[in-house]
Amino acid sequence: MLLMHLREAVCEANLELNRRGVVLYTWGNVSGIDRERGLVVIKPSGVGYETMRPEHMVVVDLDNTIIEGDYRPSSDTRTHTVLYRAFPAVGGIAHTHSAHAVAWAQARRPLPCLGTTHADHCAGEVPCTEPLSREQVRRDYEAETGHAIVHALEGLDPLAVPMALVAGHGPFAWGKTPADAVRHAVILEEMARIATLTAVVSGGAPPPLEDHVLSYHYERKHGKNAWYGQDKSK
Amino acid sequence: MLLMHLREAVCEANLELNRRGVVLYTWGNVSGIDRERGLVVIKPSGVGYETMRPEHMVVVDLDNTIIEGDYRPSSDTRTHTVLYRAFPAVGGIAHTHSAHAVAWAQARRPLPCLGTTHADHCAGEVPCTEPLSREQVRRDYEAETGHAIVHALEGLDPLAVPMALVAGHGPFAWGKTPADAVRHAVILEEMARIATLTAVVSGGAPPPLEDHVLSYHYERKHGKNAWYGQDKSK
Amino acid sequence: MLLMHLREAVCEANLELNRRGVVLYTWGNVSGIDRERGLVVIKPSGVGYETMRPEHMVVVDLDNTIIEGDYRPSSDTRTHTVLYRAFPAVGGIAHTHSAHAVAWAQARRPLPCLGTTHADHCAGEVPCTEPLSREQVRRDYEAETGHAIVHALEGLDPLAVPMALVAGHGPFAWGKTPADAVRHAVILEEMARIATLTAVVSGGAPPPLEDHVLSYHYERKHGKNAWYGQDKSK
Amino acid sequence: MLLMHLREAVCEANLELNRRGVVLYTWGNVSGIDRERGLVVIKPSGVGYETMRPEHMVVVDLDNTIIEGDYRPSSDTRTHTVLYRAFPAVGGIAHTHSAHAVAWAQARRPLPCLGTTHADHCAGEVPCTEPLSREQVRRDYEAETGHAIVHALEGLDPLAVPMALVAGHGPFAWGKTPADAVRHAVILEEMARIATLTAVVSGGAPPPLEDHVLSYHYERKHGKNAWYGQDKSK
Repeated sequence: MLLMHLREAVCEANLELNRRGVVLYTWGNVSGIDRERGLVVIKPSGVGYETMRPEHMVVVDLDNTIIEGDYRPSSDTRTHTVLYRAFPAVGGIAHTHSAHAVAWAQARRPLPCLGTTHADHCAGEVPCTEPLSREQVRRDYEAETGHAIVHALEGLDPLAVPMALVAGHGPFAWGKTPADAVRHAVILEEMARIATLTAVVSGGAPPPLEDHVLSYHYERKHGKNAWYGQDKSK
Repeated sequence: MLLMHLREAVCEANLELNRRGVVLYTWGNVSGIDRERGLVVIKPSGVGYETMRPEHMVVVDLDNTIIEGDYRPSSDTRTHTVLYRAFPAVGGIAHTHSAHAVAWAQARRPLPCLGTTHADHCAGEVPCTEPLSREQVRRDYEAETGHAIVHALEGLDPLAVPMALVAGHGPFAWGKTPADAVRHAVILEEMARIATLTAVVSGGAPPPLEDHVLSYHYERKHGKNAWYGQDKSK
Repeated sequence: MLLMHLREAVCEANLELNRRGVVLYTWGNVSGIDRERGLVVIKPSGVGYETMRPEHMVVVDLDNTIIEGDYRPSSDTRTHTVLYRAFPAVGGIAHTHSAHAVAWAQARRPLPCLGTTHADHCAGEVPCTEPLSREQVRRDYEAETGHAIVHALEGLDPLAVPMALVAGHGPFAWGKTPADAVRHAVILEEMARIATLTAVVSGGAPPPLEDHVLSYHYERKHGKNAWYGQDKSK
Repeated sequence: MLLMHLREAVCEANLELNRRGVVLYTWGNVSGIDRERGLVVIKPSGVGYETMRPEHMVVVDLDNTIIEGDYRPSSDTRTHTVLYRAFPAVGGIAHTHSAHAVAWAQARRPLPCLGTTHADHCAGEVPCTEPLSREQVRRDYEAETGHAIVHALEGLDPLAVPMALVAGHGPFAWGKTPADAVRHAVILEEMARIATLTAVVSGGAPPPLEDHVLSYHYERKHGKNAWYGQDKSK
């Protein structure tokens, strides 16, 4: 079987998504990419988490051709492959319908950076895509969803802003690995929950975090001289 | 004992309703129908989930006469039988008092389709019934509740819109089987939770999902050429 | 040891309060009364649920004198005894700081009856007490809290409206037994949660439930000819 | 190994923070101080709760010099040491990103005392710090965060108001021991949750608790003649 290590990582990432409580039934999917071979491993469509195993994962190439797998790949596969093509540094992608992130996507608002919890994980607001036109939906809905995300990220480093909201749909998150993508999806849900509560407490638009605090927090975790955590190679 | 397989399916569906966290105490009920015999199997009234077994289920006919059972049937039985008579394609019905769906029912508002999470499961807004008059309550409250649901569904396919809100009361959901009905009840609660959060984020009426995205999403899961999931017969 | 059966019922009711998730740390208390002897069994103050046993319960008389017990009784004991004196049909009382019920108490608003979930358990709105004056607090805060509840219940049957909100404080609930009192405390929290969500969905004051539906629902569960549940003696 | 008892208390307090559901991933930290030796024991940065053991804790002095430890100390260490210097009665400090407390911090509002749940644990509103200037962030962000908290507590007894909100960031709580600090962090989250719900129910600014009830409740738990709980030495 192809890419057994990546199959295991992607399967485990899908199960972690479920354990973290951000998916109901099978409403989520995670993929990972082997950049050398240009192959993507992704969750099969509509398969339950209870029985999911690495061998159920589906291998597709970047043109969405199934290379190996007994199951249909996730119906969002063409969105994933567009993102892998556009973001060469990305190694894993996660998509969920987690409630608070979906609420912001349905309100069609970018998620503002209101505090350090957000700034620790995302270098600025989480962008929200433009709605898709009737023509785009007809042409290739899933690929156009990917293009809309790429467009929303224009000018941003996808590893510094590792997440986006698709208008009227929900969140996509990514990272260097499938596990990173899942962690970002979980964190995005918590960021969105806290932003929602902040709006309630503020009774309107809450004040954004000052730029100098935002960049300080982001840098202390992710900058060249980051000293958060135990990675002494940084 | 009559209809042992259906008794098991209905008992299991009631237990699943409880496991999914959409009922408090005994505030929910699920039934299933054997269309050939015209018999309905339904949860007994006020019996706890801890000790519930298939043999406790009650068998009634479509005129609400108890055919077999040591217990009283759910007090909502007459609502279920009205729905089975009106919706011939329906094989199972679930009723809950899940908090977010009840909130929309109490606000007496249909649940608008604000995103693809909703569109994936329901082909348009979830209708809300008209309030019952004093006369209707006196005549036959439970049956009139069923009639109000049927009226609210007028012109809709009950398998495409497998759920409704009863004004001032709460949600009913249905499907081809008791398990489907429960799944729809659980999904309706999540749809209502996300819609509530979207209203909070939007600070008022949020934008509805574009029709072309709504129908695309519904069709990719449920249309003639649906490709979601692993059912290759579709 | 006195009243061993009642001690067990009261201990079990306190543990159930905790299991149901309506108390944080030791923020709740349940008592029960032996009407023949005029003795009240109540939770000790500030004792953790992990180690709580029937023999830790404290027995007091209706004048708040400790009759038996190695621990101090709950600091709210004098509120409980005022209620037992005023409501002769009541056999158990529960007090919590459950979040949604406290929110309505802090907003100093009675909980309106907005739907059948409420009407199934409480025959009309849940009253909210008047604030206590500085003089009342100085005189006997806990007893005055009880008097304020009694005052708020004036003209109502305490078994039909088995709960009240103390302004700026939180909920008290009661019933024929300590277990009933706990069930009402849990249900009050869910009623308050649903009412809060309804206010959010409505964007203001939601419509009250029609009187004819309210009384129908209450009667089908609690009236002389109630047919909810399996109690065939009714 | 130095301070083994304190290491165990601090490790256990960090694990308790996680068990109580107020941290996601590693988003929290607890420390304790040995006042005689002037040494602080604190959680290492970015280490998971699953494998955390007392020997992983880091010992620093009040000048933030690492005295013993194989790991980097929490990135918030300099905030902790400023608080230990300013509040000599404090023996433990906890910091979290719990959602409701963060929401008030992001709204940059002190948490008002709206009821007895709050008054039982904090003698008045929970202060919120002033935002830090660009210059303060550049100079020493973590130490300046501590100074901002000290400034916000001016004129207050840190054991009577054992918590504060850092604007745009989140809550810090403290107490006589690391376990007390964690309990206050958990309680602050619940206080903030209830205050948020009260604002929703009130549809605006809710009424504050009367001073005579606030001081009565605080005193009955914490005053010289407190009679809450079982500590008969009071």
